[in-house]
Amino acid sequence: MKILALESTAVAGSAALVEDEKVLGEFYCNTALTHSQTLMPMVEQLLACTRTALEDVDLFAVTAGPGSFTGVRIGVSSVKGMAMALEKPCCAVSTLEAMACGASMVEGLVCALMDARCGQVYTALFRVSGGKVERLTQDSAVSAAEAAAVCAAWPGEKLYLAGDGAALCAPLPEFRALGAVLLPEPVRYQRASGAARAALAMAGRGEVLSADRLAPIYLRVPQAERELKKRLRTQ
Amino acid sequence: MKILALESTAVAGSAALVEDEKVLGEFYCNTALTHSQTLMPMVEQLLACTRTALEDVDLFAVTAGPGSFTGVRIGVSSVKGMAMALEKPCCAVSTLEAMACGASMVEGLVCALMDARCGQVYTALFRVSGGKVERLTQDSAVSAAEAAAVCAAWPGEKLYLAGDGAALCAPLPEFRALGAVLLPEPVRYQRASGAARAALAMAGRGEVLSADRLAPIYLRVPQAERELKKRLRTQ
Repeated sequence: MKILALESTAVAGSAALVEDEKVLGEFYCNTALTHSQTLMPMVEQLLACTRTALEDVDLFAVTAGPGSFTGVRIGVSSVKGMAMALEKPCCAVSTLEAMACGASMVEGLVCALMDARCGQVYTALFRVSGGKVERLTQDSAVSAAEAAAVCAAWPGEKLYLAGDGAALCAPLPEFRALGAVLLPEPVRYQRASGAARAALAMAGRGEVLSADRLAPIYLRVPQAERELKKRLRTQ
Repeated sequence: MKILALESTAVAGSAALVEDEKVLGEFYCNTALTHSQTLMPMVEQLLACTRTALEDVDLFAVTAGPGSFTGVRIGVSSVKGMAMALEKPCCAVSTLEAMACGASMVEGLVCALMDARCGQVYTALFRVSGGKVERLTQDSAVSAAEAAAVCAAWPGEKLYLAGDGAALCAPLPEFRALGAVLLPEPVRYQRASGAARAALAMAGRGEVLSADRLAPIYLRVPQAERELKKRLRTQ
């Protein structure tokens, strides 16, 4: 099964083409450019370099959240457009699960952390063992201290921190007390190949959607909506 | 320091742009296409997607061997051409060291293994700890059993197998006896980002070359030369 996966929930963006467990190609960019400029050119070049026609893709995967609201919408819209045109199924992958799937070579707990601003992180905890990824907690938006408290409930296992929130959390006393290790660059951030791996498992469980049902996964109300409500209240 | 790294020593090929420890972008393809068709287009697209001019690259890195003789020559020639035109320094990275640098998130020994045909593997052993990579043995071309015997000299440490020879060696009784673990896909094969990481360390030790001194690293005489010698002997 050929899976085309897109990842654009944070600053870095990537596209990957995966056949079952084999990564046929991946294009990753971590620059300040907006995904609306880079994401579809990356897909085009990835397909060209692997000599793959878009019609040959069996499943479209995207990290549908949590993450930057604009980034999530760019990824979801791009996948929705391609899948709808080709009438192919989609997978809405949790960004945090994509991180854990990308770090499946470690042995221990992987705490996925994204900077959610407003004093919060998006986080979920996974156990990685023998290349298998097991979810221990649901995706949530909590304080860094609360995320550490969740990790502390699984003592005695090596703890790795992933995501763009990992470097922010690693120096905190709550995480230092747990001996948390920052994952190094190649696997610290979410990548499309990790999203494809998560999607392969989801497809095996029948967790696929038609393009019209694909939607972003929001853990919090978008800032624009929060501000609108605030303005409406104060009027 | 901006490093552009190329990797084309086996079936997969990749190009990476790295600034110090940060991967700005990476384009990886693992298809049966020849590197002469894919490598330079990947470089072009990588620079375009990261909005980087070739002139802004400070150091050119390439996995100069061991590996496929044709693949190594394509990578070395491409880097030599760019570095010579721009009068920039080069790094000739060991393919096996690039693998270990790409797997720096594990804790234990990394045995890098490439299928060298003729009943041999190209191999070297590294210790990876706290994200640091320490070389334990020099690159060599030996039988798989000999490679396992070398690993057995460091007992009691978790052993990971990397490279396109890893899947061939993992089922062998000599490696099974050591409890060797096959690294999963995203970090099993050599990648340009691993080569860039190795090059950053080499540059810190002053191990850079001018473009005219950059050359492939051969552990064995190329097959064409072996056959020529054989023909000359039998004439």
